[in-house]
Amino acid sequence: MKVIKKSKELQTLIEREKKKGKIIGLVPTMGYLHSGHISLIKRAKKDCGIVVVSIYVNPTQFGPGEDYQRYPRDLERDKKLAKEAGTDILFVPSDEEIYPDSFHTYIQVEELSGRLCGVSRPIHFRGVATIVAKLFNIVKPTKAYFGWKDAQQLIILKKMVKDLNMDVEVVGLPTVREKDGLAISSRNKYLSKQERKIAPILYQALVKAKKMVNSGENNSARVLQQAKDLIKKKKGVKIDYLKAINLIDLKDAKKIKKNTLIAIAAWIGKTRLIDNVII
Amino acid sequence: MKVIKKSKELQTLIEREKKKGKIIGLVPTMGYLHSGHISLIKRAKKDCGIVVVSIYVNPTQFGPGEDYQRYPRDLERDKKLAKEAGTDILFVPSDEEIYPDSFHTYIQVEELSGRLCGVSRPIHFRGVATIVAKLFNIVKPTKAYFGWKDAQQLIILKKMVKDLNMDVEVVGLPTVREKDGLAISSRNKYLSKQERKIAPILYQALVKAKKMVNSGENNSARVLQQAKDLIKKKKGVKIDYLKAINLIDLKDAKKIKKNTLIAIAAWIGKTRLIDNVII
Repeated sequence: MKVIKKSKELQTLIEREKKKGKIIGLVPTMGYLHSGHISLIKRAKKDCGIVVVSIYVNPTQFGPGEDYQRYPRDLERDKKLAKEAGTDILFVPSDEEIYPDSFHTYIQVEELSGRLCGVSRPIHFRGVATIVAKLFNIVKPTKAYFGWKDAQQLIILKKMVKDLNMDVEVVGLPTVREKDGLAISSRNKYLSKQERKIAPILYQALVKAKKMVNSGENNSARVLQQAKDLIKKKKGVKIDYLKAINLIDLKDAKKIKKNTLIAIAAWIGKTRLIDNVII
Repeated sequence: MKVIKKSKELQTLIEREKKKGKIIGLVPTMGYLHSGHISLIKRAKKDCGIVVVSIYVNPTQFGPGEDYQRYPRDLERDKKLAKEAGTDILFVPSDEEIYPDSFHTYIQVEELSGRLCGVSRPIHFRGVATIVAKLFNIVKPTKAYFGWKDAQQLIILKKMVKDLNMDVEVVGLPTVREKDGLAISSRNKYLSKQERKIAPILYQALVKAKKMVNSGENNSARVLQQAKDLIKKKKGVKIDYLKAINLIDLKDAKKIKKNTLIAIAAWIGKTRLIDNVII
């Protein structure tokens, strides 16, 4: 596995591999790799001749007061995990490399970016779209891999690719979970022991909702109310949103049907977690 | 010369040429080709194996009340001129092809887009950056050609390419002028005979400013005042802005030196024209 810090060097290397006919797969991450990332890397390795994993904690997707500073970082551990999972090239650019002085260009996927997490994180998806577009332009992958855990991110990136005619296939892979159902996330590290015990309630609420739908209930309000009631029984959980939405436009779905996403964001203590299930 | 309407078809064709080792040059236009465009196409033909000229009157760069509807269009004439100049592929997409329903993604080059023409045309450069990024992603040119007449556009596009790591060289070519100095523009067609007679005053004012600088005057305020005074002698010209600015950040330059741009936008009747000279 090669570890590369400079875009130019990476581009030269990838150009060479492309000339050999290699398919390039990209797994963009913010590091602190976990089994969710590993599943993306392994799938990329199956699909592609060369797997590039990027590790970059992207400042433009964190709002003021968010956890940019304390976001967990452990490059040595990441290198080991990335290598084991089959990464060919690990791209670890510096801030100066990605956002040189006077950087001022942003990509905004309007409408979609203002919904769900976009309400409490207004600049988040602009930052995500921008960094991913930059990585796409540097790496020029044939395929890029993202987890369905960040469903809104995935939907926004697919929209960006379509709207801007980017020549890359965005592949979404299923959320990886702990044994008790908690969606795996780098932010789980923030949870205290007590909070960690409570955290699976988010997924339990989504499962409850899904079960209601499977047994014939399609009224969103009723389904969501039951899920909310379940969460309210636990102390220490504050719901940011719990919604049934249409996968295409992220608008509220009054009736739950195929391709409805039931998505939650909630604070457990000072940690904001998200999760979702697709019907 | 091939005339192509669909992005997919264009991409297939270009992919094939690239595999043959051909360098692709792109000349994005809004059609109604004039000798400014022709100079871009001819230069592209010199540099590149395949020259793609796009013709698309881009609605997202026109504000409400601007001249989108009446912008001059003449595809048959354009085909003839493009072919004569050496165009290999003429790309003439439809609105549905470029902006399908639910299009929502825009590229904003902040700071630069709000200055000069951005003051009176607040969404203009967002539209320009977005359409050009789309064309870059469809055509994947090695080089793309633009005129210095639209200096702010050129500077913004260079910034977008740098900030978003786009792998294309943006080439700027000198403004082409009528014999009396008027910068050639599709919008000159809007001018009445009387207005056409007045129009060269814009360039005359810029030349006057440049002469002052060449003879040792470097105080912007004094230089611009003389240029403004010259214009004020003509009836029927309303200055939108006349500024000396720094080429990098488009901020006002108090002192005029190398790489200062003296730029003007003015209304002649109902027609807004722009021009500039570089020191």
